Amino acid sequence: MTGPVNRRLLLRRRPEGRVTLDDFTFARETIPQPNDGEAVVRVLFLSIDPTNRIWMTDVDQYMPPVAIGDVMRGAAIGIVTDSRSVRYPAGAYVSGLLGWQDYALVSDSGPSSPNVLPATLPVPLSAMLGVCGLTGVTAYFGLLDIGKPKSGDTVVISAAAGAVGSIVGQIALLHGCRTVGIAGGPEKCAWLRELGFHAAIDYKAHGWRDALAEATPNGIDVYFENVGGEIMDAAFERLALRARVVLCGFIANYNSGTRADGNFTPLLMKRARAEGFIISDYRGRWLEAVAALAGWVAAGKIRYRETIVDGLERSVDALNMLFDGTNLGKVVVRVAEPDASAP
Amino acid sequence: MTGPVNRRLLLRRRPEGRVTLDDFTFARETIPQPNDGEAVVRVLFLSIDPTNRIWMTDVDQYMPPVAIGDVMRGAAIGIVTDSRSVRYPAGAYVSGLLGWQDYALVSDSGPSSPNVLPATLPVPLSAMLGVCGLTGVTAYFGLLDIGKPKSGDTVVISAAAGAVGSIVGQIALLHGCRTVGIAGGPEKCAWLRELGFHAAIDYKAHGWRDALAEATPNGIDVYFENVGGEIMDAAFERLALRARVVLCGFIANYNSGTRADGNFTPLLMKRARAEGFIISDYRGRWLEAVAALAGWVAAGKIRYRETIVDGLERSVDALNMLFDGTNLGKVVVRVAEPDASAP
Repeated sequence: MTGPVNRRLLLRRRPEGRVTLDDFTFARETIPQPNDGEAVVRVLFLSIDPTNRIWMTDVDQYMPPVAIGDVMRGAAIGIVTDSRSVRYPAGAYVSGLLGWQDYALVSDSGPSSPNVLPATLPVPLSAMLGVCGLTGVTAYFGLLDIGKPKSGDTVVISAAAGAVGSIVGQIALLHGCRTVGIAGGPEKCAWLRELGFHAAIDYKAHGWRDALAEATPNGIDVYFENVGGEIMDAAFERLALRARVVLCGFIANYNSGTRADGNFTPLLMKRARAEGFIISDYRGRWLEAVAALAGWVAAGKIRYRETIVDGLERSVDALNMLFDGTNLGKVVVRVAEPDASAP
Repeated sequence: MTGPVNRRLLLRRRPEGRVTLDDFTFARETIPQPNDGEAVVRVLFLSIDPTNRIWMTDVDQYMPPVAIGDVMRGAAIGIVTDSRSVRYPAGAYVSGLLGWQDYALVSDSGPSSPNVLPATLPVPLSAMLGVCGLTGVTAYFGLLDIGKPKSGDTVVISAAAGAVGSIVGQIALLHGCRTVGIAGGPEKCAWLRELGFHAAIDYKAHGWRDALAEATPNGIDVYFENVGGEIMDAAFERLALRARVVLCGFIANYNSGTRADGNFTPLLMKRARAEGFIISDYRGRWLEAVAALAGWVAAGKIRYRETIVDGLERSVDALNMLFDGTNLGKVVVRVAEPDASAP
């Protein structure tokens, strides 16, 4: 094939355990041509999220799993390069489920049509996937709407140095909460302290459960769960009366299946509540969250980090960073340089 | 010792697994004498509840465990036989944590002072522990306040032929819910159908999980949990979007410790909520529930059964019925005949 091609990661089989490139076919196809009401989007940044891993697995979940042979589903930002659409004019930046590929064909009326980004952005383009995108909005509604923290509450966050966790913690601080992060390794914990967390617990260190108990002398009022497994177990032992557990994710379990086992007894004994949520339910309130987040970023009250991985072919590596815990903040794959892609 | 004595079941050691009489000292003491502001209560009926088993175990719970050497804690109804109290006049019936003994000394000002029952009762005396007592009130607030069923919802109840479960199901029916009970054995299931349950699943029968799936074609909107273990697992697989799980108890786990393991994944995937509660938090709203329950009983809209076991010395046997599932409805121990006990 000569000339520009559309590289696409097609799911070849359901991964067992850790994902490898062999689980995908790296297809090279022609760039799609738009019909009336359609546009072609050059993918610029992929959002790498734990949920990508869930979508590869054939279990009951909040969307159907990716079908074998289909392009891998993923949130992304891109620029319209070829348009026969009113909604998506050439040169517009869009955000949505564009998939792990160079070019996506989008349609004015599709059920998962991407959103057009405003002309002026509050943060750099890639951060529209992070602090002012899916990640930040997840942190915002998960903490405030499900966790309902009050000033003076103790809020504990697992995967606290991750994309969502680091934002959750800073929002908790802004709400007057004693904020404790659980993360793996001294570098991440140092960053959390830099962000103002009252305590950072390194779960890879000896005696971390005792450290968690010391950091939560009055128990845990809000526990924001991204991990599951023994970290969840340890936090559950510290739940305070009428604690709220925000179930955001269970990354400890996604490679081994998705069953997240845990201990329900503290929920009973402490009259506590555990509740799952999915950010797509908050579509109607998206702007509320983005406005608040953008304001906090502008005021220097929320800081964020990104781990940028270059190249579509490294998407699997980027995803595995989440499972290895080698990232700080949001992981994005830069598929193409924004400036080089304008039509 | 001659003359009347106060027989008392004192906790001798923490039971391992199934409770036996050897876990208690069956003491014979003199009947206490009231001082000013005190009264002596002849215990008539003991309320036998799964929580008795929890109180024997030294785990984190909503009250301290019973101390070794102390009389076994238990809800009961009795009659005042000897009084130097204004609050508890001789002849009054009282309800409270009187303990597993013949006579309890109660005080006007104690933190767990019993309540005086009204002179006219809506149900027989023993049922003031059941349908119009702790059991019924637990069913009422657990279902309505935590489960928040709407007309047309599917409500599933484990231990549905038990004291709490059988009332929960009938309240759900009164609220227009499709009501499915899970119970052990054909006799219990027949009773649930007689009460109007839309379906009764015998978890001891082959293929019961399929039967549960068939009985809940639209999933489960409210799951009222009394059991834990594999019954909870099966119900969790059927949770509908935004389901509410009422955590009332985990009797499957109380003999083996109290850790109730379960699967948190459906809570995440279905944006569902699991919440524990304890009925003592509803002290201020007690009359609301009793009034509603008494009205439904009077109108024939709620029916109840009791399993009455005679003799204080059989309290442990009575408790084990809950774990063996050999009871229908509320288990009470008749310690003394009400009529023979008037002072």
